[in-house]
Amino acid sequence: MSEQEINLKNNLTMLTDFYELTMANGYFENGFENTIAYFDMFFRKVPDGGGFAIMAGVQQVVEYLENLTFTREDIEFLRGKGIFSGAFLDYLKNFQFSCDVWAVPEGRPIFPGEPIVTVRGPVIQAQFVETMILLCINHQSLIATKANRIVRAAQGRAVMEFGSRRAQGADGAVMGSRAAYIGGCVGTACTLSDRDFKIPALGTMAHSWVQLFDSELEAFRAYAKAYPTNCLLLVDTYNVLKSGVPNAIRVFDEVLKPLGMRPAGIRIDSGDITYLSCKARKMLDEAGYPDCKICASNSLDEYIIRDMIMQGAQVDTFGVGERLITASSEPVMGGVYKLSAIEHPDGTVIPKIKISENVSKITNPCFKGLWRLFDRESDKAIADVITLADEIIDDTRSYDIFDPEHVWKRKTVENFHAEPMRVKLFEHGKKVYHSPELSQIRAFCEKEVDRLWTEVKRFENPHHYYVDLSPRLWNEKNRLLSEHSF
Amino acid sequence: MSEQEINLKNNLTMLTDFYELTMANGYFENGFENTIAYFDMFFRKVPDGGGFAIMAGVQQVVEYLENLTFTREDIEFLRGKGIFSGAFLDYLKNFQFSCDVWAVPEGRPIFPGEPIVTVRGPVIQAQFVETMILLCINHQSLIATKANRIVRAAQGRAVMEFGSRRAQGADGAVMGSRAAYIGGCVGTACTLSDRDFKIPALGTMAHSWVQLFDSELEAFRAYAKAYPTNCLLLVDTYNVLKSGVPNAIRVFDEVLKPLGMRPAGIRIDSGDITYLSCKARKMLDEAGYPDCKICASNSLDEYIIRDMIMQGAQVDTFGVGERLITASSEPVMGGVYKLSAIEHPDGTVIPKIKISENVSKITNPCFKGLWRLFDRESDKAIADVITLADEIIDDTRSYDIFDPEHVWKRKTVENFHAEPMRVKLFEHGKKVYHSPELSQIRAFCEKEVDRLWTEVKRFENPHHYYVDLSPRLWNEKNRLLSEHSF
Repeated sequence: MSEQEINLKNNLTMLTDFYELTMANGYFENGFENTIAYFDMFFRKVPDGGGFAIMAGVQQVVEYLENLTFTREDIEFLRGKGIFSGAFLDYLKNFQFSCDVWAVPEGRPIFPGEPIVTVRGPVIQAQFVETMILLCINHQSLIATKANRIVRAAQGRAVMEFGSRRAQGADGAVMGSRAAYIGGCVGTACTLSDRDFKIPALGTMAHSWVQLFDSELEAFRAYAKAYPTNCLLLVDTYNVLKSGVPNAIRVFDEVLKPLGMRPAGIRIDSGDITYLSCKARKMLDEAGYPDCKICASNSLDEYIIRDMIMQGAQVDTFGVGERLITASSEPVMGGVYKLSAIEHPDGTVIPKIKISENVSKITNPCFKGLWRLFDRESDKAIADVITLADEIIDDTRSYDIFDPEHVWKRKTVENFHAEPMRVKLFEHGKKVYHSPELSQIRAFCEKEVDRLWTEVKRFENPHHYYVDLSPRLWNEKNRLLSEHSF
Repeated sequence: MSEQEINLKNNLTMLTDFYELTMANGYFENGFENTIAYFDMFFRKVPDGGGFAIMAGVQQVVEYLENLTFTREDIEFLRGKGIFSGAFLDYLKNFQFSCDVWAVPEGRPIFPGEPIVTVRGPVIQAQFVETMILLCINHQSLIATKANRIVRAAQGRAVMEFGSRRAQGADGAVMGSRAAYIGGCVGTACTLSDRDFKIPALGTMAHSWVQLFDSELEAFRAYAKAYPTNCLLLVDTYNVLKSGVPNAIRVFDEVLKPLGMRPAGIRIDSGDITYLSCKARKMLDEAGYPDCKICASNSLDEYIIRDMIMQGAQVDTFGVGERLITASSEPVMGGVYKLSAIEHPDGTVIPKIKISENVSKITNPCFKGLWRLFDRESDKAIADVITLADEIIDDTRSYDIFDPEHVWKRKTVENFHAEPMRVKLFEHGKKVYHSPELSQIRAFCEKEVDRLWTEVKRFENPHHYYVDLSPRLWNEKNRLLSEHSF
């Protein structure tokens, strides 16, 4: 592969909806080249009816924006379309990203309607980056949110991400395992994710290992000899209780005991795992292996895990595959990217609103800020407030919040602590953010989820968390709505 | 980025479940280095309760296998794990893919239980490639199958793939659009897919274009001037019937008519599209634009499109986003990869079977072939037959097929034509297959789907298509089952 081909392959600049380019060319041709615009990314609904989502994918947005560049081949490809002006193509040739970008950092709980990403800059640029910002954040936030649900269902037991083979493409696997780790998984089956992201990769054997030998016993024996320090045996190739567990115990006795080693565990991948795990636990305990872990896999998700634990399953580790890596129960996080304001050449900011007959689809106009209020005593989150960008919530005094749709619902918050929820990623196109290590993001996620009330964390009918507008923003939105009304 | 870093980034060799490596090392240490094994990929269930799936992703498997190589960094990474032998790591350093690989070509309808991919070669290698073969074929077959359903629902109207922003990762978007094109979509919104796969990328404007201007009319006017030959206007930013369509007509009259141009179309992205499209159609017709196409988008899938058409929606083109690119109604194609045989050093092939308490999870043993029988008169597919690899179905004589689970259900097939369903991709590690152009694959898919009976193509309760075993294979399977029975 020539360097040029390699470059083409790594360059995701062209992973953009074609209309971003037709609009960019149109903006350029209509003299909007230097018009400054503000765009917000937000989502409307938490997947699976959950109470909150987990922000993820920011690091990939940063890398995408840092590497934005149109190659000569890209320009020639676009020229071949026959609809872009020469001047515009020259502009792309010299494209230099110069926007300001803010985002909620990865691992933080987020709620519908919040501007989780804001881009401010020349409209051609701020518009162009829509597709990849949405793609990265929608995908990873979806998987981090799902992983966090599954991890919470496991109540402290370890959850492994096992889904590469069922992922939607290579990035689905790798970035999915990254997001799953942020959401609380302890590791992954994907070797590449360990190499590139230091997510612990684990794995031992498939059924084919057992089948390749003349008997299950020989297969287990060979594995124990090869991996005495990490001897985890898959016990369901033939029959878990009649063959798998007895053979495992025999091999622990024969191979590990003389070496002074303890077994790592057994894995059950089919059948009634709750029942089988209880029986297997008893057999292992009686054989003198109460420390031998039991790992379960096979079409698990948060509901099955919750039920298994409720029914007393003796499982120490859950390996979760397709239902996590695709978030199969609701495989889309429907984040959108909407214009919220433009600047006149004199610097005046003109707020913009998108009207819809569907009230929930009406956007919040203006250049905005985002705050989370925490109770000082419990350190639990009380509400989020979307403000105008220049507002600062003064937490030395009481603060009135109100429901933006039902404004008579009001509450005075006292003894609280206000935190701005977002960080700045780029300033005039220059990266000003240094992403934490992935393990730090994972720890941050755990801590921030812990700062939510239990009621918000329910799987069914979670408490509706308040995301309110500041009075100034609310007034501005209503002014625009009345101007536009038909 | 150094060349080394670039190489690391493109190398998907390490996108493998960690257990493929622990098993490989174990095989190596147990003297199985030269043992030849056979693995089959098959799936158990057509997504969405459909009658058939569409094979896709073969080209990406070919590219992955062609580029299999462990870099120095990969080897050092694995050495750092502390569980792999030095001899095994040396083996990986000199890794040279040497398997034979067969697969159903892309675009062909496939059914549960069929060996859609078979790999024969040294067990370390044939096992190792499991993760990526499953990932590529599961993902793209899933999306091609979904796209084909949506395209059939549209009954000849054009379907565009619009889902990049909701895809599960960059490959989810790009490979997804590739698969959607195979399944019958006419194009995509994804620019990268056009550049790299020549899938026509289309797109015009987002709501932000309309919002950026002081009025919808000005926004339309500017667009029509910039793109008089491809003037497709998004009419639902404010109000489709009161504002969008009247403004569009005014601009067609003002800008296009004097140039002698005809409008390309309007797009409706929200609201009751069936109702709105009928009203808009009438307005456009009355204004002298019966040739102006109406494009619909907004959370479409095969069911909504079928209902819209039934209710008389006046839509010419459907833009389908998240529900296609993630196959959201069932976002997993559960293909598996199972050992079916090994060879003794003397060349004897020993069939292998995986038993399960769940009858549908019992595998088909042996090195196999796969045939499709077509009626000579109608050219419609009658049944598929899985045979032993050395069997040839003689279509000059009648052939008895029987249900492998209910063997008394028998049928004698006459006047038929038998086609082997698979092609050889690799011979002793050397690529021997040249993939057709993507447009040829798409045409092949259309033709092969047309060779299925209508009954198999229903969305609800499709006719169960016969996938039978040859008598020799059936006998062999039953012999193994009785040997293994507990």
